[in-house]
Amino acid sequence: MPMSSLLEQLIDALRVLPGVGQKSAQRMAYHVLERDRAGGARLAAALASAVERVGHCVRCRDFSETEVCATCASAGRDAHQLCVVESPADRLAIEQATGYRGLYFVLQGRLSPLDGVGPRELGLDTLAARLAEGEVQELIVATNPTVEGEATAHYLAQLARQHKVRPSRLAHGVPLGGELEYVDRGTLSHAFGSRSEME
Amino acid sequence: MPMSSLLEQLIDALRVLPGVGQKSAQRMAYHVLERDRAGGARLAAALASAVERVGHCVRCRDFSETEVCATCASAGRDAHQLCVVESPADRLAIEQATGYRGLYFVLQGRLSPLDGVGPRELGLDTLAARLAEGEVQELIVATNPTVEGEATAHYLAQLARQHKVRPSRLAHGVPLGGELEYVDRGTLSHAFGSRSEME
Repeated sequence: MPMSSLLEQLIDALRVLPGVGQKSAQRMAYHVLERDRAGGARLAAALASAVERVGHCVRCRDFSETEVCATCASAGRDAHQLCVVESPADRLAIEQATGYRGLYFVLQGRLSPLDGVGPRELGLDTLAARLAEGEVQELIVATNPTVEGEATAHYLAQLARQHKVRPSRLAHGVPLGGELEYVDRGTLSHAFGSRSEME
Repeated sequence: MPMSSLLEQLIDALRVLPGVGQKSAQRMAYHVLERDRAGGARLAAALASAVERVGHCVRCRDFSETEVCATCASAGRDAHQLCVVESPADRLAIEQATGYRGLYFVLQGRLSPLDGVGPRELGLDTLAARLAEGEVQELIVATNPTVEGEATAHYLAQLARQHKVRPSRLAHGVPLGGELEYVDRGTLSHAFGSRSEME
């Protein structure tokens, strides 16, 4: 193959990124080399530092380069509310979309016994210890509405009740701006069954 | 913003890649940190090396980490044919799709006077010197069928004729597997005008 071997290595390495196949990897490599070598060097450095130095917060398990992350360390957050999410991306989505001022707990996964993911892998012992401290009053369960996410939600609700903490979950139903015609049957059926009286 | 700052830097740096916006950059950063730190480290290293060490071949201007690239240095290629393309990606596409065994010349752009891209920026002095050597017999012009690509093709054909080299260009027409109904008017009109007799 008469191609620069460093270039081949770069194209190959780019495929580690999600959604990047051979063609996109080629395009990315060529773009960086042709147009933005400084940006490429910055990316290489940022990636190397992040991979080496970003760990997990000991309180909430979210990504953090310090032992306790900025959110958990903040005095401005309400420690009575704890929102449990599956991933850092979910946490970020909630943080950006809502005015939530409580704290988070990031499972970094969901219960999936067949894949060997049990309560221990999700740090639920840490979560139980946290609930036992007595400060948390409401556990907001924000796992994804998938089969595994629902099972995880069920488990979390039981854990909360064991510690006399009130579990709550996000509302499910027709998305705002959605058209009934295009909403999937499960969601529509749920939304229909959970209808509320109009004032 | 209560997010790890190394993580923020990484997300920001990923946006240097073409087609990667804020959301994709987040997804990529999370994916690498959650699932594949080894791959991330490999990408950082490959990117750093490529940005620093991949230069251009002095013969064909394609990317190369050596002074003369493997294709130009190869004894197995036909030095009588020279195919001129706009970018390394175009060169690679031709190399992968066709059985072409001649050499290449990569313009790294196209004539675009308004953007300050003239013959010098495209290395056309180097190309002229190459044609003057007398070894090249056919100059295959494979610029893109855009306005600027066509202007560049016209210029290249003149250059070839000045050096008594035969210029040729890729056939244009209806793509194989394309449906006439969906082919753009310009292409269809060209293909109609350039129809050939059936045997």
